Amino acid sequence: VSLGEFDLIARYFDAPAPGAVLGIGDDCALWSPSPGQHLALSCDTLVEGRHFLPDVDPIALGHKALAVNLSDLAACGARPCCFLLAATLPRVDEPFLAGFSQGLRALAAAHRIDLVGGNTTAGPLAFTLTVMGEVPPGQALLRSAAQPGDDLWVSGTLGEARLALMALQGQVKLGTAQLRQARVALEQPQPQVALGLALRGVARAAIDLSDGLLADLGHILQRSGPTGRPLGARIACDALPLGTVLQSQPVAMQQACALAGGDDYQLCFTAAASAATQVAAAGERCGVRLTKIGCLLEPGAGVQVNDGHGRVLATPQQGFDHFRVAPA
Amino acid sequence: VSLGEFDLIARYFDAPAPGAVLGIGDDCALWSPSPGQHLALSCDTLVEGRHFLPDVDPIALGHKALAVNLSDLAACGARPCCFLLAATLPRVDEPFLAGFSQGLRALAAAHRIDLVGGNTTAGPLAFTLTVMGEVPPGQALLRSAAQPGDDLWVSGTLGEARLALMALQGQVKLGTAQLRQARVALEQPQPQVALGLALRGVARAAIDLSDGLLADLGHILQRSGPTGRPLGARIACDALPLGTVLQSQPVAMQQACALAGGDDYQLCFTAAASAATQVAAAGERCGVRLTKIGCLLEPGAGVQVNDGHGRVLATPQQGFDHFRVAPA
Repeated sequence: VSLGEFDLIARYFDAPAPGAVLGIGDDCALWSPSPGQHLALSCDTLVEGRHFLPDVDPIALGHKALAVNLSDLAACGARPCCFLLAATLPRVDEPFLAGFSQGLRALAAAHRIDLVGGNTTAGPLAFTLTVMGEVPPGQALLRSAAQPGDDLWVSGTLGEARLALMALQGQVKLGTAQLRQARVALEQPQPQVALGLALRGVARAAIDLSDGLLADLGHILQRSGPTGRPLGARIACDALPLGTVLQSQPVAMQQACALAGGDDYQLCFTAAASAATQVAAAGERCGVRLTKIGCLLEPGAGVQVNDGHGRVLATPQQGFDHFRVAPA
Repeated sequence: VSLGEFDLIARYFDAPAPGAVLGIGDDCALWSPSPGQHLALSCDTLVEGRHFLPDVDPIALGHKALAVNLSDLAACGARPCCFLLAATLPRVDEPFLAGFSQGLRALAAAHRIDLVGGNTTAGPLAFTLTVMGEVPPGQALLRSAAQPGDDLWVSGTLGEARLALMALQGQVKLGTAQLRQARVALEQPQPQVALGLALRGVARAAIDLSDGLLADLGHILQRSGPTGRPLGARIACDALPLGTVLQSQPVAMQQACALAGGDDYQLCFTAAASAATQVAAAGERCGVRLTKIGCLLEPGAGVQVNDGHGRVLATPQQGFDHFRVAPA
C-alpha cells in the first residue's frame, strides 16, 4: 500500500454514497439492507490480458467491470444495491483511472447504485468487484430450478462479442463499421437487470451467459438434474438470435460464436411451456428481445443441437470443447 | 475462465455454508442478514510480490488473506458473518491450493463464518476477499469519532511483522528461533474481532494497523478533525508495546518498526479518559493486552512522538515518511 493510495481513492472513487450509511474512507462501509430481503452476493475479476486487452478504452472497461457483476445479480433476479471495488494497479495512470471511473460511475448511476468501499494496491492490472443485491426470500432465480419439458429462452443476441474479439485478435476480418458495431457487444454489454426482476415468478432456472451458451447451459442442466445425471436439452440452431454483423459470417462461425462464444452477458433461462405468454410479456415490458431456442429434456438425454434440417450438430459426448473457441 | 475453474472450486472451496441460504455454485450467493443490523463491508487484496513472497507457506497465506479482512471488521466493531473469495491463479497448483484452502478454512471456522461465493480466474497470483459483518445501527467504531483529550490505545504488540519481513529480505539478521517467532506476527496475524466487539460503546474512534501506527493514526486524526485540520496526537515512544524479538533490536529499529512498520493487524483506538477502566476490562475479557500509548490533541497540534526523556522524535511536518521503512 503506497501513500498515494488515499489520494487516488479520493480523486477517482470517493463520491457520495447516499444509499449507504457510511461510504468510502473507513475500515468498512456500512449499509442498511431492506427489512426481510435476502442478499444476493457475487464477485468477478477482470485481469489484463485475460479479460481485456492492454489498449482497451478505459471508459468501456469501467463499464464492463461493473456490467459483468450486475449480470450475475440479473441472473438471480436480484435488485442491485451497492458494490465494492478492489483495484490492482501497476502504476498511477491518471487518464486511465479517470476513464475507468467515468465508465464505472455511468453504469452505477444508470442502476442507481453506489460504490461504497474498496481498496487499491500496486500489482498487475486487475479489478475485482463485489456486488450486493436484494431479492425477496424464495424468489431468486436459481440454476437448479429447471425441469424437463421447460422451454429454453435467451435474451438479446448471441455471439457478437466473440466475433469482435476474434477480429481484434486478427482471426477474422471485419469492415470498419462492422467491427465498430461488434465491439459494442464486447465492450459495452448491458446487464439484463430489469429482465431478471421481471422474470421473478415467471422463469424457473436462469444463468447469465459469460462462458458461452453450451457451457453456461451445462451448469443449469447439471444443477437441475439428480446428482451426476444432468438434465438434457435440445437447441434449435436456426433459432439462435444473432446480431446483424454475425449474420454476415459463414454458418460455422455463426454457430461457434453463438453456442460457445462467451462474453454475451445475456440471460439464458427456462420456463414452463405454460408460462410462454408471461415470458413474452416480461420481455416486452423490458424492451428486451426474448427468443425460445429449445427445450429441456430428461436426465441422460444429453444436449442436442439441431440444424434447420433436423440434423444433430453436437452432443455432450462430443463435448462443449468441440465448439469452444480458444480462450482470449 | 477455463473449464477447469469449476473443478477447482468444487475441490478446494465448495464446502457447505450452513449460515447462507445458498452457497457456492450459482450466479450469486444468497444470505439472510439479521433483522435490524447494519452491514459492514470490506475488501482487501493480497498480491504476490507485494503482500507475500513467492515462497510463502500457503497455509499461512490462506490464514492471512482472511485475517487482514476480518481485521477491518474488527476495527468497526462488526461481527463477521460471511465472505467471498476472488482468486487469480497463474496455474493449477494443487498442493498450493490445498494449503491455502486449509489456512483459510481454519480461520473461518474459528470465527464461525462461511465462504459463500467467489470466483477463480487465470492471471497473476492474487486473492481478493470481501467480508461481510453485522453491527447494530449507531454502534460501529468509526475513524471519525475521536476527540481531543481522548486516550490513545493499541492492542497486542507492534512492529514484529516488519522486523520479520526485513529479516526475510536480508536487511536484518535474526537467529533461527528469533526469526521463527517474528514470522508468526508477519504470517499469522490474529484479527482482533472479539476486542472490536468488546469496544462497542467503550472506544470512540478505531482503526486497524495495516500500514503502520503513524500512517493509520493519521487517518483517525484527519477524519476526526475539521476539514483540512487534523487532530493532533502525542505518543510516548517508551510506552509502545514491543514483541520480545523486537526488544532485542537497537532502539532506532524498535521505533521504526513500531511506529511505521505495518502489517500489525492490531487495533489502534481512542477512548475518553473516563473510560479507561472499561477499556482495561474489555482487554481482560478478551485476553488481549491493551496499552495506553498517548493522547489526542487539538487540531493543529501535530503528531508528537516523545522519547523517554521528553524529547520530540517526530512531528507531522517531518512527515510520516521520516519513519517509514521502504515498502515491501
